[in-house]
Amino acid sequence: MSAERTSQIKSRSLRFAEENYEKYLRMLGELVSYRSVSAWEGEDVKACAEHLAELLRERGFKAFLRSAGGAPVVLAEAGAGSRTVLMYNHYDVQPPDPLKLWETDPFRLTLRDGLVFGRGVADNKGNIVARIAALDSLADHLEELDLRVKLLIEGEEEVGSPTLRRVIEENLDWVRADGGIWETAYVGRSGSLRIPLGFKGMLYVEILLRGPSRDVHSGSAPLIPSPVWRMARLLTSLKTEDGIVRIPGFYEDVDGEFLREAEELIKRMSYGELEELKRELNLKEFVRGLSGEEALRELYTKPSLNVSGLYSGYTGRGSKTIVPSVAGVKIDIRPVPGQKPERILERLREYLNSLGFSDAEVVVHSMYPAGYTKPSEPVVRASAEAAMEVYGADPELAPLSGGSGPIYIFTDVARVPMTGAGVGYYGSRAHAPNENIRVRDFILGIEHVALTLANFSSLASRGAREV
Amino acid sequence: MSAERTSQIKSRSLRFAEENYEKYLRMLGELVSYRSVSAWEGEDVKACAEHLAELLRERGFKAFLRSAGGAPVVLAEAGAGSRTVLMYNHYDVQPPDPLKLWETDPFRLTLRDGLVFGRGVADNKGNIVARIAALDSLADHLEELDLRVKLLIEGEEEVGSPTLRRVIEENLDWVRADGGIWETAYVGRSGSLRIPLGFKGMLYVEILLRGPSRDVHSGSAPLIPSPVWRMARLLTSLKTEDGIVRIPGFYEDVDGEFLREAEELIKRMSYGELEELKRELNLKEFVRGLSGEEALRELYTKPSLNVSGLYSGYTGRGSKTIVPSVAGVKIDIRPVPGQKPERILERLREYLNSLGFSDAEVVVHSMYPAGYTKPSEPVVRASAEAAMEVYGADPELAPLSGGSGPIYIFTDVARVPMTGAGVGYYGSRAHAPNENIRVRDFILGIEHVALTLANFSSLASRGAREV
Repeated sequence: MSAERTSQIKSRSLRFAEENYEKYLRMLGELVSYRSVSAWEGEDVKACAEHLAELLRERGFKAFLRSAGGAPVVLAEAGAGSRTVLMYNHYDVQPPDPLKLWETDPFRLTLRDGLVFGRGVADNKGNIVARIAALDSLADHLEELDLRVKLLIEGEEEVGSPTLRRVIEENLDWVRADGGIWETAYVGRSGSLRIPLGFKGMLYVEILLRGPSRDVHSGSAPLIPSPVWRMARLLTSLKTEDGIVRIPGFYEDVDGEFLREAEELIKRMSYGELEELKRELNLKEFVRGLSGEEALRELYTKPSLNVSGLYSGYTGRGSKTIVPSVAGVKIDIRPVPGQKPERILERLREYLNSLGFSDAEVVVHSMYPAGYTKPSEPVVRASAEAAMEVYGADPELAPLSGGSGPIYIFTDVARVPMTGAGVGYYGSRAHAPNENIRVRDFILGIEHVALTLANFSSLASRGAREV
Repeated sequence: MSAERTSQIKSRSLRFAEENYEKYLRMLGELVSYRSVSAWEGEDVKACAEHLAELLRERGFKAFLRSAGGAPVVLAEAGAGSRTVLMYNHYDVQPPDPLKLWETDPFRLTLRDGLVFGRGVADNKGNIVARIAALDSLADHLEELDLRVKLLIEGEEEVGSPTLRRVIEENLDWVRADGGIWETAYVGRSGSLRIPLGFKGMLYVEILLRGPSRDVHSGSAPLIPSPVWRMARLLTSLKTEDGIVRIPGFYEDVDGEFLREAEELIKRMSYGELEELKRELNLKEFVRGLSGEEALRELYTKPSLNVSGLYSGYTGRGSKTIVPSVAGVKIDIRPVPGQKPERILERLREYLNSLGFSDAEVVVHSMYPAGYTKPSEPVVRASAEAAMEVYGADPELAPLSGGSGPIYIFTDVARVPMTGAGVGYYGSRAHAPNENIRVRDFILGIEHVALTLANFSSLASRGAREV
């Protein structure tokens, strides 16, 4: 009987989403209005956390804030079932810059032609609201599903989650769960959900080279050693012309089991979306002309090294004539499973020293390893099945997201296998101006979370055993 | 008799400066109070021009304003002698930023410990006032000196004098003169006056390389060709590791006569000041370990290529993870006499094309050639002799300033040989916070201009012939 009962609960939940989504868009609008830009360290970060805790308390959740010196983490739980699901999200957002490229106010939710615009609608406030909506749709059945639900919503994801690990280690008993849902998954061009089974890690460093003790009138340029030229040489030393990272050992230490499972997943992944990205970005070709499985392999199984920012001297409008005293570069390195970012940092440092850059200041902004969940984990299977039911097509399981997130704190520190869910789509422009989601995906995203929970519940697993 | 008479006039003039300098500091205070920052394009630019014209009219000058679409140029003349001197200055100033580094209000003249602080006191309002004071000291003798004096004071020097050439071409007959005094010279550490006999030219370009059509989340970095790496390669292609410019022909076309004369001047120049600069900037050594005559030769006879600004992606505080869509570099190239900036631009363009950078956008911000006056010119000899008399030491004649200025409009377009005079010193901090001059140099600067005029006058030249 439990399979049939699960099915009934799921149907009610689907109806709930269709009938009530407008209310949740309003809830999203409220969340978006908080300028919870973690990089700004403003008042709105904390206010947003408190608003969320209040929203959850109104629903009978036991919600509280925890901090390890950084932005507060919202912890909330409901239900007392024998299976526990942990949902991770973050309420902080990227800065809206460049503001002039936004067609609407980034902090005011705007609906237009079936699209919802606003900073954070895809990354990650829309997902927070979808989870709350999904929980509302199941609220009357949580006991019957024999489910316990925990939400952990941090406020520093966009600056590298510097204190999340400590908060989780200090609340390790609370965090434990049988499975978890990570912050994101998104709808691909084919209409199926793309669920990443992990995230790359992050080693974000800023490298500074110094020249004269202050900016100097460039009339003296013929004599002054400028840090710009050394920075150019440093950068060409980091990558070959065709994009291969030259730091010795950079591609080593990758987990063999991950690579084998990734190969299997890649065979079933579509390349069309990347081709589309290439077109959208107006690129003649990808690095080294990569395409098909080769491109997917590069993206989903290899560590990357990218320059996110480069600066020296006068970067404003018009002209100023100086020899700059400093040249800086912001580099994001993304390790894959098995790789230790500490070791990569060490290799980078050694490589710079070997090239005569021992004077380079290397400032670490964030550092954490990759995290990965095997496709055979029950929570992955529950979410894949839910995706099939909601989106009408098998989801695309990616070995990793191209992006990074401190999912390792869950998968490796707290040992919670994690799957994904999300309301964004391939055109969501996370981190960029005009971030948006589709109203339809918002509804489907609510449904997918609800069905994942139902599928993963003790009730469903009893049903599975009965079959 | 005229040599003796010239000597008498000069003595009176010296006494005048010593007795009246406080009045001229007050005049300087009034000028400094105008916020004539050309980059701001505010009301004060025009008001400052009108104030100057009025000051000159009060002295019997025929003064008027001329404009070719930009800030007005003050043109003023007095005397009807058979020798004509043209003085060039500018009443506009650099922005005072960063304001917080000023110890006094930049737009309020402040005296402290024999120093005079304020934006423009050295560059270039102090020099304007010194010239007016010098003319006042000679006013009763202008007819006897058989001298005609013209002042040309522009208001766009700090933004590259975009309309000066047109104003001068439209008033070419008016501008003609037997010799001229350029805006600046300064007192070196040895106490002698350093007079540059010309200025390098300027070719200020911004080079842009484009990658994806917009900034992309750097999760896709393994596939996206980033303009940063190409920019690094472009920069390493522009200069060797030891600072030699690699653009073919970059060092060619330099005027041979200039080089020969420069060699002679360099032999008599002191290197100590550069050594001092090196210490102040906390540099272990100059480019390629250059020192002594080699360093002077590099600085004063060779064209330079410097990066004033470099930018790509996110350059704010903290971290953001994107593949930037654009990388840009601001490059100031300073041609020397004989070189045509148009030809250098062509060579740069060809070189970039040959390296596979034909897609690079090259935006020209300003472009003009060097200008130079031979040390044997009468006006140079007149000012050198005056410097000896006033500063008590032979002046240091530099073949060029390390900096740039559109002096070619005078030397090459209007064919007026130019020398220098100025009230600043090695510690004046032109363009920087706490710009200042020494009261003593202000007095000496007035005297030097007066004596240069007297030495250059028809009366003095008659005297010279008599000897």
